[in-house]
Amino acid sequence: MIDQPDNRERQEAGQRMYDLIVELYPICRSITGNGVRETLEIIGKHIPLQLVEVPTGTRVFDWEIPREWNARDAFIKNAAGDKIIDFKKLNLHLLNYSIPVHQKISLGELKQHLYTIPEKPDLVPYRTSYYQERWGFCMSQNQLDSLEDGEYEVYVDTSLEKGHLTYGEYYIRGETDDEVLISTHVCHPSLCNDNLSGIAVATFLAGEISKTSPRYSYRFLFIPGTIGSIAWLSRNESRLPHIKHGLVITLLGDDSGFTYKCSRQGDATIDRITTYYLRKRFKENSKTIDFIPYGYDERQYCSPGINLPVGCLTRNPYGTFPEYHTSADNLQFVKPERLYESLKVLRELMDMVEKNDTYINLNPKCEPQLGKRGLYDKLGGRSDSKTMQLAILWVLNQSDGDNDLLDIVQKSDIDFQLIAEAAEKLKESKLLKTVR
Amino acid sequence: MIDQPDNRERQEAGQRMYDLIVELYPICRSITGNGVRETLEIIGKHIPLQLVEVPTGTRVFDWEIPREWNARDAFIKNAAGDKIIDFKKLNLHLLNYSIPVHQKISLGELKQHLYTIPEKPDLVPYRTSYYQERWGFCMSQNQLDSLEDGEYEVYVDTSLEKGHLTYGEYYIRGETDDEVLISTHVCHPSLCNDNLSGIAVATFLAGEISKTSPRYSYRFLFIPGTIGSIAWLSRNESRLPHIKHGLVITLLGDDSGFTYKCSRQGDATIDRITTYYLRKRFKENSKTIDFIPYGYDERQYCSPGINLPVGCLTRNPYGTFPEYHTSADNLQFVKPERLYESLKVLRELMDMVEKNDTYINLNPKCEPQLGKRGLYDKLGGRSDSKTMQLAILWVLNQSDGDNDLLDIVQKSDIDFQLIAEAAEKLKESKLLKTVR
Amino acid sequence: MIDQPDNRERQEAGQRMYDLIVELYPICRSITGNGVRETLEIIGKHIPLQLVEVPTGTRVFDWEIPREWNARDAFIKNAAGDKIIDFKKLNLHLLNYSIPVHQKISLGELKQHLYTIPEKPDLVPYRTSYYQERWGFCMSQNQLDSLEDGEYEVYVDTSLEKGHLTYGEYYIRGETDDEVLISTHVCHPSLCNDNLSGIAVATFLAGEISKTSPRYSYRFLFIPGTIGSIAWLSRNESRLPHIKHGLVITLLGDDSGFTYKCSRQGDATIDRITTYYLRKRFKENSKTIDFIPYGYDERQYCSPGINLPVGCLTRNPYGTFPEYHTSADNLQFVKPERLYESLKVLRELMDMVEKNDTYINLNPKCEPQLGKRGLYDKLGGRSDSKTMQLAILWVLNQSDGDNDLLDIVQKSDIDFQLIAEAAEKLKESKLLKTVR
Repeated sequence: MIDQPDNRERQEAGQRMYDLIVELYPICRSITGNGVRETLEIIGKHIPLQLVEVPTGTRVFDWEIPREWNARDAFIKNAAGDKIIDFKKLNLHLLNYSIPVHQKISLGELKQHLYTIPEKPDLVPYRTSYYQERWGFCMSQNQLDSLEDGEYEVYVDTSLEKGHLTYGEYYIRGETDDEVLISTHVCHPSLCNDNLSGIAVATFLAGEISKTSPRYSYRFLFIPGTIGSIAWLSRNESRLPHIKHGLVITLLGDDSGFTYKCSRQGDATIDRITTYYLRKRFKENSKTIDFIPYGYDERQYCSPGINLPVGCLTRNPYGTFPEYHTSADNLQFVKPERLYESLKVLRELMDMVEKNDTYINLNPKCEPQLGKRGLYDKLGGRSDSKTMQLAILWVLNQSDGDNDLLDIVQKSDIDFQLIAEAAEKLKESKLLKTVR
Repeated sequence: MIDQPDNRERQEAGQRMYDLIVELYPICRSITGNGVRETLEIIGKHIPLQLVEVPTGTRVFDWEIPREWNARDAFIKNAAGDKIIDFKKLNLHLLNYSIPVHQKISLGELKQHLYTIPEKPDLVPYRTSYYQERWGFCMSQNQLDSLEDGEYEVYVDTSLEKGHLTYGEYYIRGETDDEVLISTHVCHPSLCNDNLSGIAVATFLAGEISKTSPRYSYRFLFIPGTIGSIAWLSRNESRLPHIKHGLVITLLGDDSGFTYKCSRQGDATIDRITTYYLRKRFKENSKTIDFIPYGYDERQYCSPGINLPVGCLTRNPYGTFPEYHTSADNLQFVKPERLYESLKVLRELMDMVEKNDTYINLNPKCEPQLGKRGLYDKLGGRSDSKTMQLAILWVLNQSDGDNDLLDIVQKSDIDFQLIAEAAEKLKESKLLKTVR
Repeated sequence: MIDQPDNRERQEAGQRMYDLIVELYPICRSITGNGVRETLEIIGKHIPLQLVEVPTGTRVFDWEIPREWNARDAFIKNAAGDKIIDFKKLNLHLLNYSIPVHQKISLGELKQHLYTIPEKPDLVPYRTSYYQERWGFCMSQNQLDSLEDGEYEVYVDTSLEKGHLTYGEYYIRGETDDEVLISTHVCHPSLCNDNLSGIAVATFLAGEISKTSPRYSYRFLFIPGTIGSIAWLSRNESRLPHIKHGLVITLLGDDSGFTYKCSRQGDATIDRITTYYLRKRFKENSKTIDFIPYGYDERQYCSPGINLPVGCLTRNPYGTFPEYHTSADNLQFVKPERLYESLKVLRELMDMVEKNDTYINLNPKCEPQLGKRGLYDKLGGRSDSKTMQLAILWVLNQSDGDNDLLDIVQKSDIDFQLIAEAAEKLKESKLLKTVR
């Protein structure tokens, strides 16, 4: 039983998640390096996170852990010696994984190393070059257009050396070995929705679940995108059969409605539960889409040889909003109340995951006599019926080992919580047992 | 071949069914007792019904046959000694299964034992208390409102003693052991549509089928609701594999269109046939609904451990019309012509059940030469084709052992009778054989 | 790789197909006889057609090859000695398979032997009497109405004797034994759309394919309708397992949109490909219909004991246009540009058939690193993605041995050619292999 009435502490979670985002925002993260370590250490103040270091050069399936990248400083000075670009003010200005450079060059040469978004001339883009060595800067198109001819000094003080890829893992042991995987990426620098929002919500969700006694075990992964999930999967293949449900979570702080992208399986329990829940709770202001093989780490979890029941929960999805991967994805773009709402949605989804059992009716031949067990209204012949009694009849009739509670909810159009309560009553009356 | 052109005798069946209802209406039936016996004896004047008596205390699955209830008299007298409620005038006034009582009580105390329908203030409700001992009366809300303070005499002369539960069974032996089950409940007192209509139609349908030589065997059950079907099922488990199709029939005398509620299986042949037939014949003025685990005895036939292919055919379904379970479900509410139409529908459905075989084409490689068998129009090159020739081609092409005639009807959009006739012709020409 | 950019020679194919139709139009074809032989010899000037002769009396499944019919002359003269009907001017005037006659008869007697279409009074119908011996003439209703009383001389100089049924076959050997069957009927006399259009398009398609190095082997059949396909099937049962895809083609020269009738299987690859292709290319101006067991030789290929994946591609389908089986299906009714468009459609369909493989991802655990193989855009973090990169991700993700390329096209909504190209690239990079 994960979901519980909100109390003050919980209601304040929205502001506390936002505060965590404020703390993490200035850090320059990448797929490796001290920015990730620093981020995981801050998360570790909230939950007992285990840090894992994978050495450069380690084979992880088809990939190899790259050299570790660290950035200390970077700027561009104009002929007058003014810093027109300063990494220390906004780390997006530096092409992520840029190699070091220090030289004076003409505007023409400089332009070969500048990245902008011409159609959004005010915004600084976020760009990376993990697997090809180059250096570069990101700036707004407006700034680029204003640059005058002359000599510029470019300075990038980074290192790209043997080291490690770092990720964080938190495992909450439940009643069973079967587990729920929650994965979120920690490789993006100063971008709030993508993905400090996912980091904050995952951290607080983990904290809440750790205070309950869940049926499932829960594994929270805070990993660099792509290479991080590939590394984790390659090192944990024997765990995979235990993963019964999973979500990649990200983009959870803005004002838009929720989007759920199904797992590759398409009809996994997590797909059915999330689709049902969002539709029921948010109606048209939410949507479910089929799996597509691009986006976040669900690409790896749902590769054909892994094929886990892992979907992706976001608000506005990957790449579809104007602030995406730009300097506009900042502290103004995410809101405490939206973070809180996202946390609540996840809490309620996990509660459904916990309760959604498949049962066997132990008295399958005709209806059991409910009256003698106090499960039936004693005065017959009435033309109205109470919903709980209907719920009891539905659960009894459909519990043949093939239907889980969500199936029964969908056939009966009775609320999930009521169906779950009916199942609980029937289990207590020894009329139902769980299929294991 | 059950369906045949109507003759005068058949057309008069509507009035004769109505007459049977008139005869049965005054009897006070319940789930046990002499009212049921008397009812079954009257039915026995039309068809050779076998009466079965199951002793009080017999275990039937999770249930136990209750004590037998018999009501002789019941009334309420006001202070002036006037009978303001008289069981002998309308047996609905007595709470069904009421225990005996004879005392004088205040209006306040009396009200604890009165049942009304406030939102239908003219009508007397039908109420039961089978499994909890109590006494009570049913009256209109208007009458309740008019009661004056003072002392009332209540008198209930009933007995609740060891005895039997009684049901009636009629088995018509057909060509094969495979059987069709028709079940209708006989436990309701003076209510015409629910279920004297079902009783009358079942009686006359059985009478008609007994005069034919059907392929299937037919079993007609006239049973008390719930406990009756549970008792029958628990005593006849070895018969169940023979039941290939079944219908619970009730609510067949009013003016509304037909409703078919599918079996729990959802795609049983009886579901497919009835859905097709009603749609074809009545179009929008009929409907098919999915199985739901409340209603009549289909609840038991379709419990998960029984799971028979038994649907429920009614006009207005269970609980959805204002007269339901009230004194307004009386002799004016049911009509001879509606009873007759219901009988005709059942006759035609049974005819389809009889004919709906699955065949194997004995010449499956290319079309057989129909011309040399007199099955094909001899002048070729014409751009029109006769429907019977199309029917023959459809039956030949689709008879691979997987499709029954109804499948072929639905693929070809050709009338069922024509497809059945084509199959018959092809069988005579040794081009087709039945799959057994 | 069958589809290639059009060059002048190809563009001229429309006119050349039309010229072939003009050459074949006057010949009196039937299900047997010299008209078929002469037709096949003319086709043989374009492609190396093998002629097969099956003797009269040969058993072919349930049928027997009939006697060979040849017509030399036929006319009707009026009392004045004028030829009012002359077979040599329009061979449709003679009832196909008419037995010989020469006598003088009254108008009344003559009318017993005349066929017209009263509702299309200007047109001469096409009629046959293959399996019942009779003689007759076809004329317009208007002409019939104008006939005056008096004596008429009828003359039919035909023979119906032991001989052969003739068909043509052209087998193009491809990389594998698996084959594509293209079948078209050659039994109709002077009717252009039905089926000189099918004959012309099949001839030129065969010619084009013979110049490529296809993966599949291709078998082109030019056969008399019904008895011809039955004869071929009965003599080639051992070949049938090799037929992976097939089309009956006919009615390809008029102005209407395309219609595809699915095979009996309904979801064969050829059904899926043709449905997708027509919808994509012609949208509402095309349609796909379910299999029905009348029409052309697909009736035989799709009989339940044969059940090949053979659909039927036409423009206006069988029997649905006013010119169908009348003298109006003439040289004006078919057009060079329509014949060319039909050829192009078939060429593109065959190209899809060739390319539509099912693959296995050889690096199924997580995504392979595309960058190191030159398959990925090197600058990350961009919010747009190129369609080819998406195509690569889709093919990798879905290539689990269950999905063919068309499945991936339909899930991704990416163009077939692009998906096929992505698969080719991945195969070259050893990331994919074909499932065989």
